[in-house]
Amino acid sequence: MRKVFQAELTSIGEGLITMSHRVATAMEQAWEAFTTQDTELAQEVIAGDARIDFMQNELDERAIDVLALQGPVASDLRMIVGSLRMSASLERMGDLARHIAQLARLRFPNAVAPESIVPTFADMAKLDIELAHMLGDLLDTRDLSLARQIIEKNRKIDELHSSVFRAVASPEWDASAETTADVTLTSRYLERFGDHGVSVTRKVTYLVTGEWEPESVDLPFN
Amino acid sequence: MRKVFQAELTSIGEGLITMSHRVATAMEQAWEAFTTQDTELAQEVIAGDARIDFMQNELDERAIDVLALQGPVASDLRMIVGSLRMSASLERMGDLARHIAQLARLRFPNAVAPESIVPTFADMAKLDIELAHMLGDLLDTRDLSLARQIIEKNRKIDELHSSVFRAVASPEWDASAETTADVTLTSRYLERFGDHGVSVTRKVTYLVTGEWEPESVDLPFN
Repeated sequence: MRKVFQAELTSIGEGLITMSHRVATAMEQAWEAFTTQDTELAQEVIAGDARIDFMQNELDERAIDVLALQGPVASDLRMIVGSLRMSASLERMGDLARHIAQLARLRFPNAVAPESIVPTFADMAKLDIELAHMLGDLLDTRDLSLARQIIEKNRKIDELHSSVFRAVASPEWDASAETTADVTLTSRYLERFGDHGVSVTRKVTYLVTGEWEPESVDLPFN
Repeated sequence: MRKVFQAELTSIGEGLITMSHRVATAMEQAWEAFTTQDTELAQEVIAGDARIDFMQNELDERAIDVLALQGPVASDLRMIVGSLRMSASLERMGDLARHIAQLARLRFPNAVAPESIVPTFADMAKLDIELAHMLGDLLDTRDLSLARQIIEKNRKIDELHSSVFRAVASPEWDASAETTADVTLTSRYLERFGDHGVSVTRKVTYLVTGEWEPESVDLPFN
């Protein structure tokens, strides 16, 4: 019984690792589509998100089966409940990658964002992609030094997000209102992706250490 | 044992009902603060959000205790797992109300949004508030006609959200880029509040009927 249970836990863990790398790839492709006006690739990300959603449902069903059939307690129970939370965050990261791809498709053949802000978004996307892959490694190895690196990456994403609003508010900003709205949403999506990554990180840290780190205050921006 | 279990389930259900009405009130006060530049009220919403977060943690801890001590199966198990998901959505609705209040505080003594768009936001906020109270009633009564009304309210919110982007893209729009960014975020927060309400509604519907309604496609806007 215990052996079956451990195998199930391991397999749910592997599912979460796979999801982390998938959302990293989704963001990588979404960013590529965004920056090159590649609608085919955008379409791939949009269609691929359904597979990420499906993975979440499947993992959750297996977690519920484990709860029903094995009746886990103590740390095993927390692990299973934690997996339900983590899969939800990862699913949401997939949605945010999809939103970036949808913006690319919506504005085709034009670029979504003005050239002046693209390097900032490129930095944010790069950090998001690294953060999501690192999340897969954290889930795999439970090496908490990765947790600290993820939180640090998210801090940088937040800083870049603030810098987008400073750029928009500056006198040099001359994009149309429609583009300003697109830029605002893009920045928000890239920023939220990191936040969800940190949620998963905090959950893993808690499962490893038993200690809950207080969440930093989530400001709407700046 | 069964009696204790039913009492626990009822009490978790009551917690979710209370949370629904609290996030409705949070949005009501956030909107009031937003539209009257009342920073004291905004501050109240911001501080009050910590209590909503606390409620979620408390409910989740109780749900985990029930899982550990009672080992529920079948529909009881789905109910408990569902409560974990619903509390997370309600907590997020509280965050979104807080974001509206934070924008009000950030721009004080100025208004966040130009007068031309305020009636649209007022309609969205009204629908959000009604939807959240209705969610409390749905959780209380399991009357699925309320579920349909909630989904209809969210559809209207989505329409209004699209209309905000049309207004921003129109030649008549003359707000500053900073204000355009604020308007974009405000609309997004008001829209996401409704989405989370629909997530809870779908969960309740599933628990009542055993049937999962497919989620409508979530577009970034328009």
